Amino acid sequence: MDLSGKRIAVIGGTGKLGGALAGRFARAGLSVVIGSRSADGARAQAEAIGHDTKGFDNATAAATGDVVVLAVPYAAQDATIDTIAPHLSGKLLIDTSVPLQPPAVMRVQLPPEGSAAVRLQARLGEAVTVISAFHNVAAHKLATGEDVDCDVLVFGNEKGARGAGIALAQAAGLRGLHGGALANSAAAEALTSVLIFLNKAYAVDGAGIRITGTLNESAI
Amino acid sequence: MDLSGKRIAVIGGTGKLGGALAGRFARAGLSVVIGSRSADGARAQAEAIGHDTKGFDNATAAATGDVVVLAVPYAAQDATIDTIAPHLSGKLLIDTSVPLQPPAVMRVQLPPEGSAAVRLQARLGEAVTVISAFHNVAAHKLATGEDVDCDVLVFGNEKGARGAGIALAQAAGLRGLHGGALANSAAAEALTSVLIFLNKAYAVDGAGIRITGTLNESAI
Repeated sequence: MDLSGKRIAVIGGTGKLGGALAGRFARAGLSVVIGSRSADGARAQAEAIGHDTKGFDNATAAATGDVVVLAVPYAAQDATIDTIAPHLSGKLLIDTSVPLQPPAVMRVQLPPEGSAAVRLQARLGEAVTVISAFHNVAAHKLATGEDVDCDVLVFGNEKGARGAGIALAQAAGLRGLHGGALANSAAAEALTSVLIFLNKAYAVDGAGIRITGTLNESAI
Repeated sequence: MDLSGKRIAVIGGTGKLGGALAGRFARAGLSVVIGSRSADGARAQAEAIGHDTKGFDNATAAATGDVVVLAVPYAAQDATIDTIAPHLSGKLLIDTSVPLQPPAVMRVQLPPEGSAAVRLQARLGEAVTVISAFHNVAAHKLATGEDVDCDVLVFGNEKGARGAGIALAQAAGLRGLHGGALANSAAAEALTSVLIFLNKAYAVDGAGIRITGTLNESAI
């Protein structure tokens, strides 16, 4: 999917992951708007990023965006969706949610629907196309300009929609890979708890994952 | 955990994964017994492996082993457990099961219990210590002597028990890593469907995973 000319709205764009993604997207030349509960906070973050980034409250940002990236903590997802759902019809939503349930964040606790992404798609209905991505990337590493040694698995039921997620991963300087159906999001969502465990157990500064093997990009 | 002097029983040792693991364990100098539904088949496989490997029916192999590796297809797990459960009390069971539900093997379909490993532990009760490992390794690559570019995440509720899984991964020539609680097995089990998707989508000969970041082995 060609993202040129499309506005990318990052909901939760003042958070760690959202802010880091928004900054990388903007520096890659994409048109970015930041959403936050506080419009003032969003404007300040947008100014800090520069590159003509704009900041609004979450609802206005969602209404302004052509493609919407959801980057709020899982616990805030329901309330955020209440706010932005009226502005998502016909759009592509890229969910970055990992269903962590503090305090046991090192333990996989997937929702009854199987994954946060499938739960979100069910909640939003067919008028919104949900894909998911960016579950395994350490936000603090994304926030710097450094190379991040992590692949981005992109899940969704439509190949074309997944392509938009892959294009965003590339814009963020990461390798994006088709990971299959939205139900497969469970794998990357669950893996994040494993990575948090690895960070603690092995004193790692932001473990990530790489898919190994020779991938033929032209096969897809 | 020191595996020297312990007998490793590989249940389903005539299958692709079981046979490959048994061969690597035996060549690493471990004492290996192979179990299969057919004692004749197990004996033939054991002779092919050599290194004093023995072959028995599954029940006898489980009774003979000090550590039991379960490497049967998920669909055969219940019937196999019926056969070997009487011989598992007080032992360590290493489950390699991935809950694939053909024909949709590229789609994550975790069981209601959250993972195959948690389901198995619930079925066997506290007298058996279940850990899980080897979910993401391509069996046809393991079957050769080649280096396999894949980490083995080991899950279990006891660190010492996970250590046995890590020792077995090392014996098989792979890097084994503590992946946390048995519930976290969901991540690696789900990831296998993603890897099968990647193999098809990108024409990969056995995709695997690597954990990135600088892991401090002495921290654990």
